[in-house]
Amino acid sequence: MAGVVWIFLFFALSLPAWAAPHSEATQECLACHVEATPGIVSDWQRSRHAEVTPADALQMAPLYRKVSSPKIPQSLQATSVGCAECHTLNPQTHKDTVEHNGYDVHVVVTPRDCRTCHVQEVDQYGQNLMAHAHGILMKNPLYGNLVEAVNGIQVLGSQGLRMAEVPAHTNDDSCLSCHGTRVEVQGTVSRETDLGEMDFAVLTGWPNVGVGRLNPDGSKGSCSSCHARHAFSMEVARKPNTCSQCHKGPDVPAYKVYQVSKHGNIYASQKAKWNFSSVPWVVGKDFNAPTCAACHASLLVDEGGNVLAQRTHRMNDRLPWRIFGLIYSHPHPKEPDTFSIRNGQGLALPTNLDGSPVRSAVIDAQEQTKRRETLHGVCLGCHSVSWVQGHWARFEKTLEESNRMTRTATELMQKAWERGLARGPQAKQNPFDEPFEKLWVEQWLFFANSVRFSSAMLGSDYSVFDNGRWYQSKGLRDMMRRLEMGRPGAVNAKTR
Amino acid sequence: MAGVVWIFLFFALSLPAWAAPHSEATQECLACHVEATPGIVSDWQRSRHAEVTPADALQMAPLYRKVSSPKIPQSLQATSVGCAECHTLNPQTHKDTVEHNGYDVHVVVTPRDCRTCHVQEVDQYGQNLMAHAHGILMKNPLYGNLVEAVNGIQVLGSQGLRMAEVPAHTNDDSCLSCHGTRVEVQGTVSRETDLGEMDFAVLTGWPNVGVGRLNPDGSKGSCSSCHARHAFSMEVARKPNTCSQCHKGPDVPAYKVYQVSKHGNIYASQKAKWNFSSVPWVVGKDFNAPTCAACHASLLVDEGGNVLAQRTHRMNDRLPWRIFGLIYSHPHPKEPDTFSIRNGQGLALPTNLDGSPVRSAVIDAQEQTKRRETLHGVCLGCHSVSWVQGHWARFEKTLEESNRMTRTATELMQKAWERGLARGPQAKQNPFDEPFEKLWVEQWLFFANSVRFSSAMLGSDYSVFDNGRWYQSKGLRDMMRRLEMGRPGAVNAKTR
Amino acid sequence: MAGVVWIFLFFALSLPAWAAPHSEATQECLACHVEATPGIVSDWQRSRHAEVTPADALQMAPLYRKVSSPKIPQSLQATSVGCAECHTLNPQTHKDTVEHNGYDVHVVVTPRDCRTCHVQEVDQYGQNLMAHAHGILMKNPLYGNLVEAVNGIQVLGSQGLRMAEVPAHTNDDSCLSCHGTRVEVQGTVSRETDLGEMDFAVLTGWPNVGVGRLNPDGSKGSCSSCHARHAFSMEVARKPNTCSQCHKGPDVPAYKVYQVSKHGNIYASQKAKWNFSSVPWVVGKDFNAPTCAACHASLLVDEGGNVLAQRTHRMNDRLPWRIFGLIYSHPHPKEPDTFSIRNGQGLALPTNLDGSPVRSAVIDAQEQTKRRETLHGVCLGCHSVSWVQGHWARFEKTLEESNRMTRTATELMQKAWERGLARGPQAKQNPFDEPFEKLWVEQWLFFANSVRFSSAMLGSDYSVFDNGRWYQSKGLRDMMRRLEMGRPGAVNAKTR
Repeated sequence: MAGVVWIFLFFALSLPAWAAPHSEATQECLACHVEATPGIVSDWQRSRHAEVTPADALQMAPLYRKVSSPKIPQSLQATSVGCAECHTLNPQTHKDTVEHNGYDVHVVVTPRDCRTCHVQEVDQYGQNLMAHAHGILMKNPLYGNLVEAVNGIQVLGSQGLRMAEVPAHTNDDSCLSCHGTRVEVQGTVSRETDLGEMDFAVLTGWPNVGVGRLNPDGSKGSCSSCHARHAFSMEVARKPNTCSQCHKGPDVPAYKVYQVSKHGNIYASQKAKWNFSSVPWVVGKDFNAPTCAACHASLLVDEGGNVLAQRTHRMNDRLPWRIFGLIYSHPHPKEPDTFSIRNGQGLALPTNLDGSPVRSAVIDAQEQTKRRETLHGVCLGCHSVSWVQGHWARFEKTLEESNRMTRTATELMQKAWERGLARGPQAKQNPFDEPFEKLWVEQWLFFANSVRFSSAMLGSDYSVFDNGRWYQSKGLRDMMRRLEMGRPGAVNAKTR
Repeated sequence: MAGVVWIFLFFALSLPAWAAPHSEATQECLACHVEATPGIVSDWQRSRHAEVTPADALQMAPLYRKVSSPKIPQSLQATSVGCAECHTLNPQTHKDTVEHNGYDVHVVVTPRDCRTCHVQEVDQYGQNLMAHAHGILMKNPLYGNLVEAVNGIQVLGSQGLRMAEVPAHTNDDSCLSCHGTRVEVQGTVSRETDLGEMDFAVLTGWPNVGVGRLNPDGSKGSCSSCHARHAFSMEVARKPNTCSQCHKGPDVPAYKVYQVSKHGNIYASQKAKWNFSSVPWVVGKDFNAPTCAACHASLLVDEGGNVLAQRTHRMNDRLPWRIFGLIYSHPHPKEPDTFSIRNGQGLALPTNLDGSPVRSAVIDAQEQTKRRETLHGVCLGCHSVSWVQGHWARFEKTLEESNRMTRTATELMQKAWERGLARGPQAKQNPFDEPFEKLWVEQWLFFANSVRFSSAMLGSDYSVFDNGRWYQSKGLRDMMRRLEMGRPGAVNAKTR
Repeated sequence: MAGVVWIFLFFALSLPAWAAPHSEATQECLACHVEATPGIVSDWQRSRHAEVTPADALQMAPLYRKVSSPKIPQSLQATSVGCAECHTLNPQTHKDTVEHNGYDVHVVVTPRDCRTCHVQEVDQYGQNLMAHAHGILMKNPLYGNLVEAVNGIQVLGSQGLRMAEVPAHTNDDSCLSCHGTRVEVQGTVSRETDLGEMDFAVLTGWPNVGVGRLNPDGSKGSCSSCHARHAFSMEVARKPNTCSQCHKGPDVPAYKVYQVSKHGNIYASQKAKWNFSSVPWVVGKDFNAPTCAACHASLLVDEGGNVLAQRTHRMNDRLPWRIFGLIYSHPHPKEPDTFSIRNGQGLALPTNLDGSPVRSAVIDAQEQTKRRETLHGVCLGCHSVSWVQGHWARFEKTLEESNRMTRTATELMQKAWERGLARGPQAKQNPFDEPFEKLWVEQWLFFANSVRFSSAMLGSDYSVFDNGRWYQSKGLRDMMRRLEMGRPGAVNAKTR
């Protein structure tokens, strides 16, 4: 069996470059763009899209296949996947389509376009929190408060500080840089080019490659968030730098923790000897320590061809917990459109203010077990059962403990609201914009998250001094001190 | 002479893989574990342990030898160092030994096991602070206070915040992740496997690869802290990522400083061209800028075979100062069991509260000179005498100056204790848990340390704005402000 | 045309090593130094300086040439650029010249020495802010206040904290580590060597490779800041680690932002496949994502040989804005000696306290347009016009907005000065040393800068939670709270 596999793989890898002829349309594009945008053309020329035709790709055995659509339109099968193939696909659904040198071309290639060949990846990805990241943030009234508190322009008026506005570009430049902007067509503009005057679409929220981008064809997400640029490289997506673009800040220090973990250490030290492009990805042969993708997405097998984990672009499949606390860590949400959840206090949160999950909104214990086992299938490729169980038991205790610390912080916050030291949800005010509230936010958004990510991957210092327990403990004391110093009469409305 | 050296080296490197037959026992292990834990088996198969027999290793000339034990038991000499060779060694001293498929197997391979072939490394390592890192932290009553202040679960009671408990798993998940846990056998558990029901040891504090781990055979430390996993790779240990696992937080930012130093720059830029596996390590041929290991541990020679520095696993050999301030920088401690030191105030610290060292506990000037010269031997491989002396003079002035700043902070702390703004050692209270005390801790644990590590390796911004002098200066002003704001009558016990 | 180019390039790369004979003097140096400083010799032996003679270098076609001086002294043309060629050049201008084994040798090779072959690079570099970095900091009375507030040793006296002194070594160890020290000859010292007693120059401020170093020959700067050590490597200078040495702190987080940008992601992932040594640097062939050097300095061409950007060592050529806010972002300064600028308030700043630029000191809109277009020439190698314009429009809006937030902070600061909560310029006091002032400094020096660098390169989290808008917003609220808490009567002079 393994022998057959290697023969297939050998065949795939030895496909000569001339096996993928370019379509006439793509050749026309290339004729100009090799000078107009040489970096783009070069990226593509080295990509698998330039080298393999869909027809050839379809002939691979299932385990080695990179196109998941069982059928691909005949018209696309015989040539490379070139400029024209993607940028002229589905012209009628693309509001950003413009006439360009005789072709109906759109700038923004979307998951719906990619779905032509990669149906499973796109459909799975669509069920991710990530695909819905724009709405999760912008349609949740509570998170909207956080966005405003962070991005609002503050000016000094006669009554103290006031929020002047939150400019649209500011959200695009900050939160939506990762969450995805809304890309809409505003019209066209005419520009002088080497070929004379040409029309181009004018887009809002552009450029952007955020994971939950709202596209001009009505789809959500951007495959190029991870499969960057025109190389569409599996290697780039599998290396942790891709994830680091959005997962490294104090709110979600996954990459920072990974870097100082044993996994990250071995990756950094040995990666030059590994193969990041083979499908399936063979543990111990292609790589010896996991990257983000290995644990959360990739199809993994051992050298005998036994599957350790099925490929998934619905990362939830391997996530029993949502360790990113908003405001508590909790079982993973059932549905990705989390903005419609309401907790016992009427807030758009998946947990109540005391930390208990909103049961109807999160997965049950059975589903958690299933996902935990799926993830452990990866761990067990390199670790014994007792190692995995010991690590996991400690990790789940840390989730619990970090929630206890967040609960104490939340109780202090509630006391501050009661005493009028800040004005929160009950007063119909933004609960994230006053000094006391900001201490509270940092407790769960920065410190508890750091402790949890560190526990998950053993990134030691992030659980102690680097935004970890040191700051959790210190912050609680500072909140208590502030609470005791405060006198209701001394409160100055929004400016305290 | 050099010619002989190269012939030896050539011989060592050209040993064919079949030169190391696997023992029967190891072959039995591999038969199952190639599927049970493919990542482990693969790691080992690529390791020197799988490729070279101890008998062959013993034949290397001293400078090229990787086994330091003059004699290795005959029974281990003729086969590779495989699963069974390590995991069945010394079964009677291992409380974690269980019967496994007819063999007495233990999970936790310890330095005492490794000592069979690597006696010098294990014995030297045992005299390091690192080997004693568990006790240094947990048996020092003062540091115990710090652990509690960081890791304790705080709850809001009627009297304000109180420390509910410090769960054992929390220490394992945070401080002891680097310092090493206590691994003890709690019994056995039976689990269904592909070979039917089997027994496994149940261990506390497991998994862990902390540098001072307390092992079930009574030994201390974990060689796999640095020689990770089953590859036991010298390359991994020599690259700075290994050290970064524990030496990168705000308390000990060695790796962060290295990254932005000229050494770290050249390493990052050029490492792909270097050889991290050769023994001895040839300056200018194998590498052109030092890693942590080059300065602190490795055997270094020039191309003519002249020794620049002898290999040591007792890193102290090249450390005249302990620049990690607890609470001041000071001459290196004489003995690694620092928890028994008492200063003039009766505190378990190697310096008095005014910064003067506890003379009986630290090395003298003569020993400092010797260690300084040993370290300079490395520097002089690539730098002129005036460069090294100029750098070192500046560095030692910075140690002094950072101690002066810490002394000012400590005087402010003492005033706060006197005025009742916080309750410290005199009041038999934890000196690290109140807001004012936390300002003080950050002065020496974060900022002074950052300044010192930065000075040692020229990691510019860590001495200025990135946790450096900016925060030292700012923190002192904040402490002074807090001191002036405080009124003894306003003090609320532990909650200020 | 391209064909000719490749023939030239082939010729250059295929120059055999023996093509560069070493001068007799250099051979004498090497005879001892191969043992005295093996790392230095090895570095040089692998460098282009050891392999190519100036005579050969001069024969390259302009686009491929690495020496810009049209004429090089005949005496230097026929041998490699060895130890003696640089360290005995211009002995009469070098105050650090000492007699060494029969030669007049100086330790500190300076840009003026390098200018012999690289006139254009040195002359351009001299017009950079960087070349003047020492004076920019130390001759500006306002920045001198900042240096003092950061580096001064604070002691506790009877009146509270007071500044004891700013030791010279402290500035060398911190700010001047990047800005460049003043290197002066203090005399000579005699040292025992393997060749008997020898004299060596004693230098202040040594060692140092800061960008604006004041050299013993009266010149400014240090080419080895970027072309490190004796390898003088173009590869090292082109990789971002070099820039990271000084451009990564909270004040100027360029490298940190780059690391989590798409550019940085692709660089980290793919760099092993790129060529960092070719001249000119071919977009899409040699590299597929820019490093710092690609955008700001290097000569870039496409595969057809079309120039996308001319080489420059005057980085200003591609910088319309100075996004490093002191205290506001503003059009780039006209002249590098910024210490002589005075704003409307008489302060040595390129902007007024309300954010408006000092028009006479900064470039005009026309020059900005020119530089913007030069920079966009690089962007357009890989991005469409609408992508570049969209990105740039958003970036410039962010500059404006970050200035608005800084203005609010400055208004709060001014109110604090008015109310006597701190003592600033009007009171002829250091405006950076009191607690309230430090909150203000962090607003523009850390947070606004982080937002701007992040916007420039899309390093998402640095614009939000990692020293970005979260802290900008929080800091303003904290300043407001502090302002309201403050009562003029409660102010304690310098110690508040």
